[in-house]
Amino acid sequence: MVIDTQNERPKHRIQLSKVGVKNLKTFIVTERSGVRHHILPEVEITIDLPADLKGVHMSRLVESMTEELSDQFRVHSSLEEVQIKVLDGLSEKHDFKRGEIKFDFEFGYTSKTPVSKKRTWEVCDVSASTIKEEGRPFIHEVEVRVIGNTVCPHCMANNEGLTHIQRAIGSLRVKGGTMDIPNYGAMIEVVESSFSSKTYSLLKLEDEVHVTKAMHDNPLLVEDVCRNILQHARERFADRNLEMFAEARSLESIHKHDVIAQGRVVTNGE
Amino acid sequence: MVIDTQNERPKHRIQLSKVGVKNLKTFIVTERSGVRHHILPEVEITIDLPADLKGVHMSRLVESMTEELSDQFRVHSSLEEVQIKVLDGLSEKHDFKRGEIKFDFEFGYTSKTPVSKKRTWEVCDVSASTIKEEGRPFIHEVEVRVIGNTVCPHCMANNEGLTHIQRAIGSLRVKGGTMDIPNYGAMIEVVESSFSSKTYSLLKLEDEVHVTKAMHDNPLLVEDVCRNILQHARERFADRNLEMFAEARSLESIHKHDVIAQGRVVTNGE
Amino acid sequence: MVIDTQNERPKHRIQLSKVGVKNLKTFIVTERSGVRHHILPEVEITIDLPADLKGVHMSRLVESMTEELSDQFRVHSSLEEVQIKVLDGLSEKHDFKRGEIKFDFEFGYTSKTPVSKKRTWEVCDVSASTIKEEGRPFIHEVEVRVIGNTVCPHCMANNEGLTHIQRAIGSLRVKGGTMDIPNYGAMIEVVESSFSSKTYSLLKLEDEVHVTKAMHDNPLLVEDVCRNILQHARERFADRNLEMFAEARSLESIHKHDVIAQGRVVTNGE
Amino acid sequence: MVIDTQNERPKHRIQLSKVGVKNLKTFIVTERSGVRHHILPEVEITIDLPADLKGVHMSRLVESMTEELSDQFRVHSSLEEVQIKVLDGLSEKHDFKRGEIKFDFEFGYTSKTPVSKKRTWEVCDVSASTIKEEGRPFIHEVEVRVIGNTVCPHCMANNEGLTHIQRAIGSLRVKGGTMDIPNYGAMIEVVESSFSSKTYSLLKLEDEVHVTKAMHDNPLLVEDVCRNILQHARERFADRNLEMFAEARSLESIHKHDVIAQGRVVTNGE
Repeated sequence: MVIDTQNERPKHRIQLSKVGVKNLKTFIVTERSGVRHHILPEVEITIDLPADLKGVHMSRLVESMTEELSDQFRVHSSLEEVQIKVLDGLSEKHDFKRGEIKFDFEFGYTSKTPVSKKRTWEVCDVSASTIKEEGRPFIHEVEVRVIGNTVCPHCMANNEGLTHIQRAIGSLRVKGGTMDIPNYGAMIEVVESSFSSKTYSLLKLEDEVHVTKAMHDNPLLVEDVCRNILQHARERFADRNLEMFAEARSLESIHKHDVIAQGRVVTNGE
Repeated sequence: MVIDTQNERPKHRIQLSKVGVKNLKTFIVTERSGVRHHILPEVEITIDLPADLKGVHMSRLVESMTEELSDQFRVHSSLEEVQIKVLDGLSEKHDFKRGEIKFDFEFGYTSKTPVSKKRTWEVCDVSASTIKEEGRPFIHEVEVRVIGNTVCPHCMANNEGLTHIQRAIGSLRVKGGTMDIPNYGAMIEVVESSFSSKTYSLLKLEDEVHVTKAMHDNPLLVEDVCRNILQHARERFADRNLEMFAEARSLESIHKHDVIAQGRVVTNGE
Repeated sequence: MVIDTQNERPKHRIQLSKVGVKNLKTFIVTERSGVRHHILPEVEITIDLPADLKGVHMSRLVESMTEELSDQFRVHSSLEEVQIKVLDGLSEKHDFKRGEIKFDFEFGYTSKTPVSKKRTWEVCDVSASTIKEEGRPFIHEVEVRVIGNTVCPHCMANNEGLTHIQRAIGSLRVKGGTMDIPNYGAMIEVVESSFSSKTYSLLKLEDEVHVTKAMHDNPLLVEDVCRNILQHARERFADRNLEMFAEARSLESIHKHDVIAQGRVVTNGE
Repeated sequence: MVIDTQNERPKHRIQLSKVGVKNLKTFIVTERSGVRHHILPEVEITIDLPADLKGVHMSRLVESMTEELSDQFRVHSSLEEVQIKVLDGLSEKHDFKRGEIKFDFEFGYTSKTPVSKKRTWEVCDVSASTIKEEGRPFIHEVEVRVIGNTVCPHCMANNEGLTHIQRAIGSLRVKGGTMDIPNYGAMIEVVESSFSSKTYSLLKLEDEVHVTKAMHDNPLLVEDVCRNILQHARERFADRNLEMFAEARSLESIHKHDVIAQGRVVTNGE
């Protein structure tokens, strides 16, 4: 006979907002518009816990995921679809008012060098969450973090065109309903187009010359990169309902520290 | 003649919530109740940027800190005091509506082994922020993250007393006004008292036996640890006005993943 | 006309042992015995640089890899095969006496829960290198890092059976020729069998009870886990020529620090 | 009566090269030439374990350190002196043939901005080890890792002076006897002088213009930075007996990956 500790009364009757598993790894295959992605996300699944229950049945959280993903040859249409199914499956195993599942992973995509037109393989970081709340439609949050660069316009203006250049990281996070979330590729393009230049895994000398000239023609503060991301996202996703957050971070080449800028815009697509 | 790029109009007139420096290192000495702490924080200082200004004068953010901390032999009464002075100094160099300064650092304190009564040196992680907002009193946020452990009561109840044990991390974050913020030592005690047992840098055999027995007498789920932190904080800081957040994370010894629990309580001290 | 800076004389004529790219991401598919793996490694490729040459043509290092891996649908028989081809390709583009390519990645595999016999997905960290040195056969180094646990026998012996338990990490690194390197699965089994117990993504209560009992029947110091890995590897790979290194690390549940043990054995298979 | 598990025979009689504690934190004050440093190192202490003993008495390793450092107000002349005392103390508590103690920490030092002559606080990473081996004098290894930058001379030569610039990290590691090890400040100066330019926490516009011009006058490949470190170290420490290793790593601003260079020189001072 099993003693169900989780269903006992807790010593302190305090409601908990999130209880669950974190840092769990899994494997998912998706295919969208004929492009297949093999993804190895780090997973967090959590639910709320009412004040009068001692604990969550953690293994049911893991099972809700392994059951959905047990067939490693199954191809899913999107990670959001997987997350919705896992939360729907979980709601049949465990009570909750608010459940959330989050995937953190590296996302690979192809690009082309600007002059030599060679195909390259690029990678960025993505976080994707889905939230199921009682009586509300699913909400998703997706963030992409992409590497680019900044070229300081302030130094350039005061130094006869000489300036400092550095690696930078741009992030775009969007929050919205299932029909409103853009695909990752569109979000990556928004961020890449907001730097002094995109970066590439491979650059032959003719490409390097081209990129370096382009960077000098487009000097940007970290504030400019952040505003570019917000503006480009606002234009690109104008027909959707999204709350959008951006951060730019510049790994200053003349300092040991970084500089950052953060902002937020909202679209009310109609 | 200096060209002041920062004061130009930006291409996209979007207000930015936070612009500044991150990952800057400094050195601070504090002394409270006769105990001196030498702290090497990683610093983030940010201010908001209105929609019609292109950039922040980043060097003024750094200077506001270096001027306050230039004398490395100066002893400060607390980190909150340092943060208030830096933000006050910054407001004379640069306009802002909302300024924030955050220190992340390791905080050392002494403890005593439970039986052999040897003195030990323990370390935890602390994050401490101060926010200065136009027309409002200073707000502070302080978080301590302390290492302890959990002993699974569910397995113990179903397995003739045998169970699994693991390292765990407990966090307490408090938010409040300058007079309401507790000192770090009190916050650390709240978290340490919430685990199955405290942990120690040094344990002689008699201590190890004592600690292991104590752990088995106090089996706790990660949910229990989180609620303990919230309850102990609510009792200890009952006479203050604080919003308090806790997280417990258990590095499961029978899994590769972790389990977590998060919650929040508020005190309205009077 | 291109100025070939790399072929100039350097200011200081010092030979460099390794020059190249690091932290490059790529995507590889392998299939061995019908099991397909999709791998997203972080890549380091380096070559030596003689004292009288200023630099390495970095883009050729990247190209040697992108050319081999440009077809993302191509299935390779092993990562070692890919690494040999990349180094062979590179030797046609760039002179070197010693070239090395290293992949760091997460490796997923399936397991089964001990009692309920449910299929689980487990992940460990792998590092795999190949070295091509003038006039010598290829040398490979492969390391697997797997999560398990330890149960302290010293505390158990002095405490009427009560003890502390914790998560642990076991590593096995092997060095040898192309025919001698074992597959990852065999190395993972060696490490998993060396802990107090294996760990699982999913455990139903009957599994948890089983695992916890098994752990208490098999108390091991971190020294024992390290020696188990070395001994199990020596037995399992007795018919190969390998230099083998092991490390065990235990995330002590009664301390904030870890304890470690390292050792080395050699097999001369014949 | 204590059961001394550690002194039992192990199941597998394999000698272990390193057994001990890792990731232990402590607090040390040193003073050299009137400059006081407060250091919070992460500590690793290990000893070898013969094939016929089951385990190490871990608490004696911790005690050998806490006893030496129990008085937090005591000022030591150097970290090497502390490490020698800890290992000497340990050899009275525990048998070993080879003992090693390693400190990893952040080291702060003051600098001056190049034009405005303002005092700044800079921080770099240091690793410092001492090894005590039976019948041999103490051996020390010290590594400093300092942030600087690179300016690409190849792009500059092929692009009418335009080029890409980025943050870089330079490391110097020295290995030698107690009288041969240089102080950290001298090692940091060697690395700082090897970049296209030093970096600073604070730069007023006149400093930024100066630094940016200096960088463009001193374009360096990552290979050049590595050779500069080795050459500057060889000259500066010519009168000592040292084996010296350097690494330069450049966080390329036009790529997502880094480029690295490594080398080694030896001085036989007499």
